[in-house]
Amino acid sequence: MATQDLIARLESTIQNIPDFPIEGIQFKDITPIFLNPKLYEDVIADLVEFSRGKVDAVCGIESRGYLFGIAIAVALEVPFILIRKKGKLPPPFISEKYDLEYGTAEIEMRTNQIQPNQRVLIHDDLLATGGTTEAAAKLVEKQGAKVTQFSFLIGLKDLHGEDKLKQFDAEVYSILNY
Amino acid sequence: MATQDLIARLESTIQNIPDFPIEGIQFKDITPIFLNPKLYEDVIADLVEFSRGKVDAVCGIESRGYLFGIAIAVALEVPFILIRKKGKLPPPFISEKYDLEYGTAEIEMRTNQIQPNQRVLIHDDLLATGGTTEAAAKLVEKQGAKVTQFSFLIGLKDLHGEDKLKQFDAEVYSILNY
Repeated sequence: MATQDLIARLESTIQNIPDFPIEGIQFKDITPIFLNPKLYEDVIADLVEFSRGKVDAVCGIESRGYLFGIAIAVALEVPFILIRKKGKLPPPFISEKYDLEYGTAEIEMRTNQIQPNQRVLIHDDLLATGGTTEAAAKLVEKQGAKVTQFSFLIGLKDLHGEDKLKQFDAEVYSILNY
Repeated sequence: MATQDLIARLESTIQNIPDFPIEGIQFKDITPIFLNPKLYEDVIADLVEFSRGKVDAVCGIESRGYLFGIAIAVALEVPFILIRKKGKLPPPFISEKYDLEYGTAEIEMRTNQIQPNQRVLIHDDLLATGGTTEAAAKLVEKQGAKVTQFSFLIGLKDLHGEDKLKQFDAEVYSILNY
């Protein structure tokens, strides 16, 4: 849905950093987007267009998922729910483990913030292998709500994250695809 | 500057959680604010009023500082710069250590995002002992910019964080003071 103009402006703004965080990985630094309020607003408008009328709540994944997620929720006039890394939220909360390259990690969401049967958007800045996103969607569905959409600024197709999200029968949208 | 109405709505929304993260501490959970887009917008309007015309850039401290910080910057039409925990930003960046109750922590900011002589707002959700905020301000001033304002959702007066910020000769504002 994003215009070629928006895609071109994002591509010229995002910085490619070779060999970070480890050799052989090209890191995409999105922080320059936030230096440009007009570009940020155009990104939000595009993500809002994807979700308008289709969701009752937005979940954002800590921490870069907060930067776009909160603005999407406010524009849609729906609740924004924080998904946080382990140990940061007070009880009551539910947790979900997921695999990393070495070991596991865990994310958490406070209970009573999502309502049963709500249609939920999960948002993050980046879709890579999809492990974190899948865990976030499980947190939502364990509470009786339904993940109907996923949105990202960037999707890394080669890592097949979308395959992990097929179980949720939801729309998936990334503005940029590599 | 906040109206009594805004303060009352925030106080009835923020949840007090006893004995978190450790016994004897009463944690203030601000996440219910984000469930209410109208309340969130009123908080932003108040923080924007404090800073309008007074700053050229906004720095937000990971991760809850992003939730209000990005919206303040966009409303002021100035750049938003992420201050992150150690190890998350690609080079080039600068770092600043600060003391925790046990040991030290470190925050980082990419260089070339702030311009010399800019007037800068440092924003976070909570002013406690002020250690993180002081380190953030040092990152800004080491790059030749000037911290002219600090803003917070909550200030915990008993922890004397404001004393640590006096060296910067900047305005300090917390919507709620405990």
